[in-house]
Amino acid sequence: MGAPKVLYPVASLSNEEYPDHIPEFRQFEKDFNVVYKSFDQPFEDIKELFRTGDLNDVEAIWLTGAVIRLQYPFNDLIDYFPETLRVIALPWVGHDRIDGAQLRSRGIHLVNIGDAPSKDVADIALQLTLGTFRYTHFFERKLRESNGSIAKAREVIGGTDVDTKTREPLPPTDPKRKNYTKYVTVGGKALNSPAGKVAGIVGLGSIGKEIAIRLWAIGMEISYTKRTPLKDGELSGLPYKPTYFNSFEELIPHVDLLVLAVPHSSETTHLINKDTIKLFKRGARVVNIGRGSAIDEDVLLKALDDGTINSAGLDVFQNEPNIDPRFVNRHDVTILPHLGSFTEDNFRNSTLRTIENIRDVLVNGGQGIHLVN
Amino acid sequence: MGAPKVLYPVASLSNEEYPDHIPEFRQFEKDFNVVYKSFDQPFEDIKELFRTGDLNDVEAIWLTGAVIRLQYPFNDLIDYFPETLRVIALPWVGHDRIDGAQLRSRGIHLVNIGDAPSKDVADIALQLTLGTFRYTHFFERKLRESNGSIAKAREVIGGTDVDTKTREPLPPTDPKRKNYTKYVTVGGKALNSPAGKVAGIVGLGSIGKEIAIRLWAIGMEISYTKRTPLKDGELSGLPYKPTYFNSFEELIPHVDLLVLAVPHSSETTHLINKDTIKLFKRGARVVNIGRGSAIDEDVLLKALDDGTINSAGLDVFQNEPNIDPRFVNRHDVTILPHLGSFTEDNFRNSTLRTIENIRDVLVNGGQGIHLVN
Repeated sequence: MGAPKVLYPVASLSNEEYPDHIPEFRQFEKDFNVVYKSFDQPFEDIKELFRTGDLNDVEAIWLTGAVIRLQYPFNDLIDYFPETLRVIALPWVGHDRIDGAQLRSRGIHLVNIGDAPSKDVADIALQLTLGTFRYTHFFERKLRESNGSIAKAREVIGGTDVDTKTREPLPPTDPKRKNYTKYVTVGGKALNSPAGKVAGIVGLGSIGKEIAIRLWAIGMEISYTKRTPLKDGELSGLPYKPTYFNSFEELIPHVDLLVLAVPHSSETTHLINKDTIKLFKRGARVVNIGRGSAIDEDVLLKALDDGTINSAGLDVFQNEPNIDPRFVNRHDVTILPHLGSFTEDNFRNSTLRTIENIRDVLVNGGQGIHLVN
Repeated sequence: MGAPKVLYPVASLSNEEYPDHIPEFRQFEKDFNVVYKSFDQPFEDIKELFRTGDLNDVEAIWLTGAVIRLQYPFNDLIDYFPETLRVIALPWVGHDRIDGAQLRSRGIHLVNIGDAPSKDVADIALQLTLGTFRYTHFFERKLRESNGSIAKAREVIGGTDVDTKTREPLPPTDPKRKNYTKYVTVGGKALNSPAGKVAGIVGLGSIGKEIAIRLWAIGMEISYTKRTPLKDGELSGLPYKPTYFNSFEELIPHVDLLVLAVPHSSETTHLINKDTIKLFKRGARVVNIGRGSAIDEDVLLKALDDGTINSAGLDVFQNEPNIDPRFVNRHDVTILPHLGSFTEDNFRNSTLRTIENIRDVLVNGGQGIHLVN
C-alpha cells in the first residue's frame, strides 16, 4: 500500500497552479501521492474518474479555484466520490458552495483554514471604512488624473453637484455645477472623521472581532448583532465594551457605519433590501467584506443616489466575477476586486493549515484541525 | 472703544472663504470686529494697511490659506504689524513657515489648534500603511479601468515585470512580460500582512501616538524614535509596549514599515537620503504624513525601482502644490493630495479652537489655549 492519494484539481496541467515554492508543500508532495488532474473536462468523464478511473482510491481532495469554476455544480460530484475519500480540504474559509450535510452523511470531513485570514480580511474592512469616511480612494485617483496637481485634485471639494450620468463630482469650471457648500464635501457627500461615531458589525465571529478592535482603535463605538451575544469570558479581554442588538433591524438605526461580515446563507441574503434601507440614519456608511449576496445592489445604488447612504466600501459583489457597471464610475464607493485575505503571508498560512488538516485526517485519524461545523 | 479688531485675510472678497455656516463663528463675528481684507495686492500696499491704513489697530490675525499663498514671504510683514497686534491664530497645526521667534520678540502670541486633527491625520497614516502592504489603491483603480471585471483587475497578480516607462505591472498578455512567480506579487512587489511586522514611528507626539494605537490594532509591533523617550506615566496607559531607539539611524534597520510624523525643521530635512536609505531592511515600506521635506524624493524613487523599498504611501511631497510626475503612474506608491485632517469634523473643531484661542488672548488676557512653543 502506497502513500495516501490526494487529489489536487487544476485548470490546466501547468505547474503555475500549485504552491511548490513553499517548502512544506514540497514535503507534502513527498509524504503523499499527490495527483494533479485537470478538471477541464465533461462531467461524465470526471464522474468516471472517481468511479472506475485513477481517482477511485483517492483519500483527500485539496480544493482549488479550478473546482469552483466548473461548468456543473461541484455538489453533483459528491454521489460519485469513492468510499476511500475521507476529507475535502478548503485552502480558504467560505464553504457556502459546498453541501456539508451531504458530505457528512457520506462520512467525509469538510475542513477549512479556520481563522487564518481573519486579520487580513479585517484590514480590508478597515481600509474600506476609512475610504467611506475620507474618500481617499477617490482623491488618490483624482491626483493621478490631474497629473500630480494637488490643487486640481482638491478642486471638487465643497461642490454638491455630480454629473448625472457618470456620478463624478463636477469641478468649479463646469457650467452644470450650480451649488457650492462651505461644508467639507465632494459631490454633496460629507467627508467625516470616524472617531466618535458608531460602528455596527453584523457577525462578530473571528473576522468580526478583528474588525472591531480596528474600528475601536480609530475611535469608533462598537455595536453588533449575531445569533448569540458574546459571553462574559469573551468580553473580558477586549479594550472596548460592545453593545449588543438582538437583530439586524434593531441595530441599523443606531449606526453611522454598518460592516457586513457574514457568510452567505438564506438568512444573510439581501440583509440590505428595500425595507431595511429605510431604517438607516441618513448619511450612514456601509462596508461589505463578507458575501455580495448580503446586499440588494439596486437598493444600495438608489440609496447612494438619494443620500440615504453617504458612501459604501465593497470587496464583494452580487455578480462576481463581474461587478455592476453602475459602481465603476461612482465617486462615493470604494470598490476592490475581492482582495479579502490576498497576501503572501495568508497564502503561506492557508497552505500550511491545509496540509495540517489533511495530515490530521489521513495520518492521525482525526477529523481535521479546522472542521467546518 | 469698539470690539477688538480681528483680521481675516481672504483671497478675494467672496464670502465662500469664511466659515459662517458654523454658528459659533457667526457669534464670533458679533463679538469682534472681524475685517475681511483681500491680500491679493502688492506688498507695499499691505504694509501700508498695517502702518497707516485700517489695519493699524488690528489686535488679532486669523491666518488663512490666502496668506500662505502670498507672492512674498509672510514673515516679511512682521516688522510692519502694529503695536496693537497681540495674537496670530493658525486654524491648523503646522507653523514652520512662520517666524515664531520674531513674533515672540514683538510680544505677539502664535497659537495653533493643538492636537485637534491628530486622529484624522493618523487615519491617513493608517490608510497609507494598509495601501503599502496590500496595494489596495492600485487594485481599486485597476477594477475601475477594467470596467468592473474582477478577473481582469487581478490578472497582474504574480507578475514580476513592469513597463519600464510607466512602471505599471505588465499583464500576462503583454509580450514584454517575461517572468512569473508563485508569490503574491504585483510588478515584482510582494503583498503582505502588516500583522507581526515592525513599525517604526519617527516622532511620537500627539499624531504619532494616534498612529501607534492604530498600527498596534492591525497587529504591528511598535518602535519609535524621538528626542526624549516616553516617560513611565505616558507608557502605562498604552495597550502596547513601544521599543525606543536613540536615533533615526538606529531605528530604521529594525523596521518593516517606517512612518514619518515629524514637522519640517532643519533636523528633519531629508531624513531619508542616499546614506540612510542603505540602512533599511530590503522591502521595507515607507509612509509620510508629516512634511514632504523629510524625504529626498530622488532617493526614494530609486529605492522603489531597485526594490530596497517595497512601496510608499505619501500624503505630503517636496514640491507641493505639485508632486513629482514620476510618482503619478507608479503602482507601488499610494499618493494623496495632502488630505491630512480634511474632514467636516476637523474643520468645525479647528474653527472652534481658533475662536477659543483669540478670545483667550483678547478677552481673558491669556496667552492662548494652544500656544505654539
